[in-house]
Amino acid sequence: MAKTVSNEKEVEVEGHLIDSMILTKIYDRIIELGGDYKTLEVRIGKHKTDTSYIRMIVKGKTPEKLKDILNEIHSLGATSIETAEATVVPAPSDMIFPDNFYSTTNNPTQIFFDGEWIEVEDTMMDKAIAISPITKRAHCKPIREVKKGDLIVVGEAGVRVKPPERSRKSTGIFKFMSSGSSSEKPASAVIRQIAQDLHNVKRAGGKVAVVAGPAVVHTGAAGALASLVRQGYVDVLLSGNALAVHDAEADILKTSLGVSLKEGVTDARGCRNHIVAINEIYKASSLRAAVEKGVLKSGIIYECLKKEVPFVLAGSIRDDGPLPDVITDTLVAQKEYKKRLKDVTMVLMLASTLHGIAVGNMLPSTVKLVCVDINPASVTKLLDRGSTQAVGVVSDIGTLLPLLAEEIGKLNSHKENTT
Amino acid sequence: MAKTVSNEKEVEVEGHLIDSMILTKIYDRIIELGGDYKTLEVRIGKHKTDTSYIRMIVKGKTPEKLKDILNEIHSLGATSIETAEATVVPAPSDMIFPDNFYSTTNNPTQIFFDGEWIEVEDTMMDKAIAISPITKRAHCKPIREVKKGDLIVVGEAGVRVKPPERSRKSTGIFKFMSSGSSSEKPASAVIRQIAQDLHNVKRAGGKVAVVAGPAVVHTGAAGALASLVRQGYVDVLLSGNALAVHDAEADILKTSLGVSLKEGVTDARGCRNHIVAINEIYKASSLRAAVEKGVLKSGIIYECLKKEVPFVLAGSIRDDGPLPDVITDTLVAQKEYKKRLKDVTMVLMLASTLHGIAVGNMLPSTVKLVCVDINPASVTKLLDRGSTQAVGVVSDIGTLLPLLAEEIGKLNSHKENTT
Amino acid sequence: MAKTVSNEKEVEVEGHLIDSMILTKIYDRIIELGGDYKTLEVRIGKHKTDTSYIRMIVKGKTPEKLKDILNEIHSLGATSIETAEATVVPAPSDMIFPDNFYSTTNNPTQIFFDGEWIEVEDTMMDKAIAISPITKRAHCKPIREVKKGDLIVVGEAGVRVKPPERSRKSTGIFKFMSSGSSSEKPASAVIRQIAQDLHNVKRAGGKVAVVAGPAVVHTGAAGALASLVRQGYVDVLLSGNALAVHDAEADILKTSLGVSLKEGVTDARGCRNHIVAINEIYKASSLRAAVEKGVLKSGIIYECLKKEVPFVLAGSIRDDGPLPDVITDTLVAQKEYKKRLKDVTMVLMLASTLHGIAVGNMLPSTVKLVCVDINPASVTKLLDRGSTQAVGVVSDIGTLLPLLAEEIGKLNSHKENTT
Amino acid sequence: MAKTVSNEKEVEVEGHLIDSMILTKIYDRIIELGGDYKTLEVRIGKHKTDTSYIRMIVKGKTPEKLKDILNEIHSLGATSIETAEATVVPAPSDMIFPDNFYSTTNNPTQIFFDGEWIEVEDTMMDKAIAISPITKRAHCKPIREVKKGDLIVVGEAGVRVKPPERSRKSTGIFKFMSSGSSSEKPASAVIRQIAQDLHNVKRAGGKVAVVAGPAVVHTGAAGALASLVRQGYVDVLLSGNALAVHDAEADILKTSLGVSLKEGVTDARGCRNHIVAINEIYKASSLRAAVEKGVLKSGIIYECLKKEVPFVLAGSIRDDGPLPDVITDTLVAQKEYKKRLKDVTMVLMLASTLHGIAVGNMLPSTVKLVCVDINPASVTKLLDRGSTQAVGVVSDIGTLLPLLAEEIGKLNSHKENTT
Repeated sequence: MAKTVSNEKEVEVEGHLIDSMILTKIYDRIIELGGDYKTLEVRIGKHKTDTSYIRMIVKGKTPEKLKDILNEIHSLGATSIETAEATVVPAPSDMIFPDNFYSTTNNPTQIFFDGEWIEVEDTMMDKAIAISPITKRAHCKPIREVKKGDLIVVGEAGVRVKPPERSRKSTGIFKFMSSGSSSEKPASAVIRQIAQDLHNVKRAGGKVAVVAGPAVVHTGAAGALASLVRQGYVDVLLSGNALAVHDAEADILKTSLGVSLKEGVTDARGCRNHIVAINEIYKASSLRAAVEKGVLKSGIIYECLKKEVPFVLAGSIRDDGPLPDVITDTLVAQKEYKKRLKDVTMVLMLASTLHGIAVGNMLPSTVKLVCVDINPASVTKLLDRGSTQAVGVVSDIGTLLPLLAEEIGKLNSHKENTT
Repeated sequence: MAKTVSNEKEVEVEGHLIDSMILTKIYDRIIELGGDYKTLEVRIGKHKTDTSYIRMIVKGKTPEKLKDILNEIHSLGATSIETAEATVVPAPSDMIFPDNFYSTTNNPTQIFFDGEWIEVEDTMMDKAIAISPITKRAHCKPIREVKKGDLIVVGEAGVRVKPPERSRKSTGIFKFMSSGSSSEKPASAVIRQIAQDLHNVKRAGGKVAVVAGPAVVHTGAAGALASLVRQGYVDVLLSGNALAVHDAEADILKTSLGVSLKEGVTDARGCRNHIVAINEIYKASSLRAAVEKGVLKSGIIYECLKKEVPFVLAGSIRDDGPLPDVITDTLVAQKEYKKRLKDVTMVLMLASTLHGIAVGNMLPSTVKLVCVDINPASVTKLLDRGSTQAVGVVSDIGTLLPLLAEEIGKLNSHKENTT
Repeated sequence: MAKTVSNEKEVEVEGHLIDSMILTKIYDRIIELGGDYKTLEVRIGKHKTDTSYIRMIVKGKTPEKLKDILNEIHSLGATSIETAEATVVPAPSDMIFPDNFYSTTNNPTQIFFDGEWIEVEDTMMDKAIAISPITKRAHCKPIREVKKGDLIVVGEAGVRVKPPERSRKSTGIFKFMSSGSSSEKPASAVIRQIAQDLHNVKRAGGKVAVVAGPAVVHTGAAGALASLVRQGYVDVLLSGNALAVHDAEADILKTSLGVSLKEGVTDARGCRNHIVAINEIYKASSLRAAVEKGVLKSGIIYECLKKEVPFVLAGSIRDDGPLPDVITDTLVAQKEYKKRLKDVTMVLMLASTLHGIAVGNMLPSTVKLVCVDINPASVTKLLDRGSTQAVGVVSDIGTLLPLLAEEIGKLNSHKENTT
Repeated sequence: MAKTVSNEKEVEVEGHLIDSMILTKIYDRIIELGGDYKTLEVRIGKHKTDTSYIRMIVKGKTPEKLKDILNEIHSLGATSIETAEATVVPAPSDMIFPDNFYSTTNNPTQIFFDGEWIEVEDTMMDKAIAISPITKRAHCKPIREVKKGDLIVVGEAGVRVKPPERSRKSTGIFKFMSSGSSSEKPASAVIRQIAQDLHNVKRAGGKVAVVAGPAVVHTGAAGALASLVRQGYVDVLLSGNALAVHDAEADILKTSLGVSLKEGVTDARGCRNHIVAINEIYKASSLRAAVEKGVLKSGIIYECLKKEVPFVLAGSIRDDGPLPDVITDTLVAQKEYKKRLKDVTMVLMLASTLHGIAVGNMLPSTVKLVCVDINPASVTKLLDRGSTQAVGVVSDIGTLLPLLAEEIGKLNSHKENTT
């Protein structure tokens, strides 16, 4: 889109334009930015599996305004008819993008470079695209990792985005709740559906990541999450210091934040229990050592270590301790999270806002996502970063998770019986 | 407190002054209203069952200010040393209180009339006290029910309030959660405790009222509430039109607001289902008739009718229909609610703000109260009107209620086995 | 759609199919209900003002399933190619609909009766359509108002719905916030936009209804709402007992629920203040009389009475008193609300869930709607019933309303200066 | 309390036992832990400035249980009659506490060491107390900072805690709202009071810390906070990456998260704006350099740098960038926060949960604390860690903060005029 001398431009877009509301969004942005359009050619898919195609002339009030519009609808998949090469500019120095850098979406993206379309790897939101002219590979790069001289894509020319397509299946929670989250859905149907989706993902060889906040332990649902790990439904656990501390406290002292998990009352000297738990882990030197030495005998972390399910504990400024296993440098923790999210198929976010948003920022839009939180605002915030298959459930993790583990147990035993 | 010529007055108060923070509150109000005090005599209960006693001189900046203070601390139980007769003034006309009417609290109240202390009956907040000089009985009267000439207590002289005492038992949810509601308590301990409390109340011959909102049905928990009714744990159900409509829809069409309770998806023509349910009940002429004719075969209302558990459905302006069984005049509905709440021992408020507040306004402070709602602000609002044994639980009714019914089932079967 | 012998049917739909996502929704429902489709003809509007047209064959797995699908997409505007007469059946008795009654949406609706398209009057959700064969007029009728023998439309044949079109304007809050409500929008821009919209509606001779909850008074914003009334921006006020009681308390005693509006502290004897306010109005006999007698000298209701702005106070079961002006029968109150909402152009819902939902149920989808509440769940609930021009604002009414009144004041004075 | 051979012990406690509910809490914990007590001597303060004193015998069911009780009531100020020396044990190795370590509260604490009472410095919750026998000074030490051989206090013997006293003043927001936060308080009174408190603190030479989340910028209140800084009402700003990024975006691009702060609509290419802002700061090398080079010309950070108000930006795993000025190691960031909170008199927490909780963990209970958030659950969470002068305000930061800045402006100009 380098030089736009007039205030009109012919663009085209192909895909599930109607189902995925892409055409609606393109029209919306043109109008919102004060532009106009004229449809030249339309092909609406005859059957539900067909894609649709539209070709149109987009007008802006000025060439400048047109450029704005083209940039905007570009991220929805509308590209200029004439295919241009992607423009690349070397990064002026370490950790600095060229001025007009192309900022990525979390959708599958390709660039036209040296006469061919190259798939961009490591798709994430809000990054730049760096191209290696030798290997002909393109990657999303965070600003911190850019080196002087890296070839960075600028402008939208030669960049093609495949906007997310909504699931076409007629069943599955990822379909029926796509209209957003609600606290007034039939809970047992929702739980059954999540269990079935998890089960299907695992049977198909998929990878499940769980992002969990300490409320999982406080509400007494640690046992339920531990059972999901034990049954093989969790491939990676992403969390922070508090989850592990309270998980250890629950095992060693049978309390969470000093509150007896069995009786619900505050223990004598209960308020020092989480510090005692930290001290015990320090004495053992690490969580793994604590399991080996028999200090930790149950819980979420225990099951992860037993099943060799990797976990990453990212530090935060509100941490007590933190535990020796916590990564206190947030840049290092981000890299570990990204590494562990590689090839993930489905993500469960359980009462975790901080780590949930961090994970949302790293996920491509094609990953299935289930967020559970008692606060509707947190669910909305998490889904905002979400995939197109994101589902929000406003519920109490302390009552939902045990019911989910029970449902998974049924599916699992059924599988064992029939195989 | 009729004539206060000076700006000092000697008062006394007796009761669980420390445990129930009554003394703290008295001091607070004196200071807040710009006054001062001098302690004359103190007896702190030696043992936990003993009451305490304090006698003090209260000062105000002016005689007027002193009067304000005395009025305020009066509702906390602090009364003048010299016992005065309650002053009564005839109501000037129907539905009008005399100007200086004494406005009631929801605490046990006595008036000194004709030389003796009379217990005020039908204790409720925000009413006046009417005395019959012939029968020597005193009642709380709402403004609408006052008749010209009714003898109404004015001022605070001769009125004695027994401020609420907190439970002295070392167990029970009414103790451990008294510090307020939280969404981060161990759910299974909370549920077990509510179940145990319900069970104890019923074993002791107590009366349980349930106030329920339509979310009980939408979240798929109607079956759980129906089972509590069937097992005899509900003595009266207070609700509105929506609960009964969606309960009927769930039975007749297997949906709630058109959403299939089994699958979680919206049925074909689902959005007309609640109107269809209303039409079916209209055709049968009433809910009872619908059960008798086999139109309604399950659900909350069905179980109530089978067990002869009375229910009151109060109309509201947002009602569809409403059902023939709904009392559309809110004054009549209030009277029915009050009648059914007579002698109630424990109240469960389940995801119901409108009817919950209505019930809260009618309850004396001695009734046990458990409020469950997913919105912490609703729980706070309900507890504000609450008893001193009020407990708030921030949770998802759709997952909590089935677990509660299960827990009750265990206690119940255990009871049957051992008897 | 009376007789569908095969499991295929040709349908057509015309309108802003893309902008308003109608086509997306039609495809969605077909797939969700297990059907399929084949597109026969497509005309996408060339310019933004043009409508689009599509003709397609819809298939169901069985003739029964096809019927389900056709019923569903019918409410989105998709009608059979052959125009059929609407089928009418007499109501079997008072207050009973015929079994297969057509349940209305809140969208503009027409029926094909006696060879011509008749516009359905009084469009509201969840009602039936009654036709008078003599006057050739059709009305939405609530179930309570149906008389034996009324001709009620059954099935979807001969009924045409014009699904809501989203605003095409590129400005206005009704555009920019259509993506839903948020607590993280720039507040001053939002307030300026609401003020401008209100101003434009009034200049164009439109009618504004305000639905307000008592929090308007508790948060100290009664003065701001009163000023909107005084400046002529409110044509009707719909509320309940509590708003008027606390408005009177604020004027007479300068407190709200006993809390001093100036100091924020609880007044001496503050908790009886709202009952005192009720008693004062009872003594005057009505709110109007209280203004005439000088008992009420300021506030929301005072300004309404001074400007002859009608207000309707609907009773609810949680009311104290209630005031003599309150309509305690909810059926009568519903009728009054409906009467006052006639021809309304814009509705402001201010911290009112109960009355807000009631009003939402009565509004056609073409009315502009702004909902303000501090609870995101309440905003979502209100918008669910909402128009296609509905806007949710999650904010504190106590700080937003004064800023809105200030903004309106500026626009108003500017108008006066320039005219 | 080292050796308790019997199951009874005589203890005493002195202070504002009634006003501050200390006696109530002591009785509560004794009963909750299954114990009993016998009051021996009581002196209740005659006037409001007097302290009270109580001496009692505490009983446990067993010597073990008694020890539990004594440990518990110890943190409320109840100490054994015979003054014992604090027991110290050397830390067994780096970063490990001795087993029975005394875990600190956030209340003023003294230890009896070598025959005299020593004040513990750097009071914070959940730490251990380390004593230097040479300097005779005692400090709170986090577990990470403990070195092998450090003398750590174990058990409760010889430790005296002064439980928090509630403010005795009859005015001030710290009094009237102490009963918890509410969204239904008169907003203008609340704002006026916060302004007055801030003003008084500054006049008295106090130090104000502001903890702010990015919603301050998103809701358009950055200008208001910047004006508080400019007027000298902020002595230190504690926040994270997002606040600074969006503050820079607001200045450079006039948007927040791509949304125009003036118009409320999403800008063309708006979603890349925060990355552009980060890139601009990277180009300048730091926020300070950006101000010096004229890249940043207004905003919160700009005002801080102009006024030399220190700010600390703590990294978190969800950060974009982060900016060069962000401390990515959370342990280092914690130390910086603690350093800057030294001697702080009042803290404003503005829509910040993560950093708010971090600060709450570091504050002694004597610091004034005002928390503003639109989510009541966040406010509750922050107050839980709070001081005894903590106030929660459930409101919209976008509307509250401009009104607060306006109020401060009035007080400030008034001060200037009168001096």
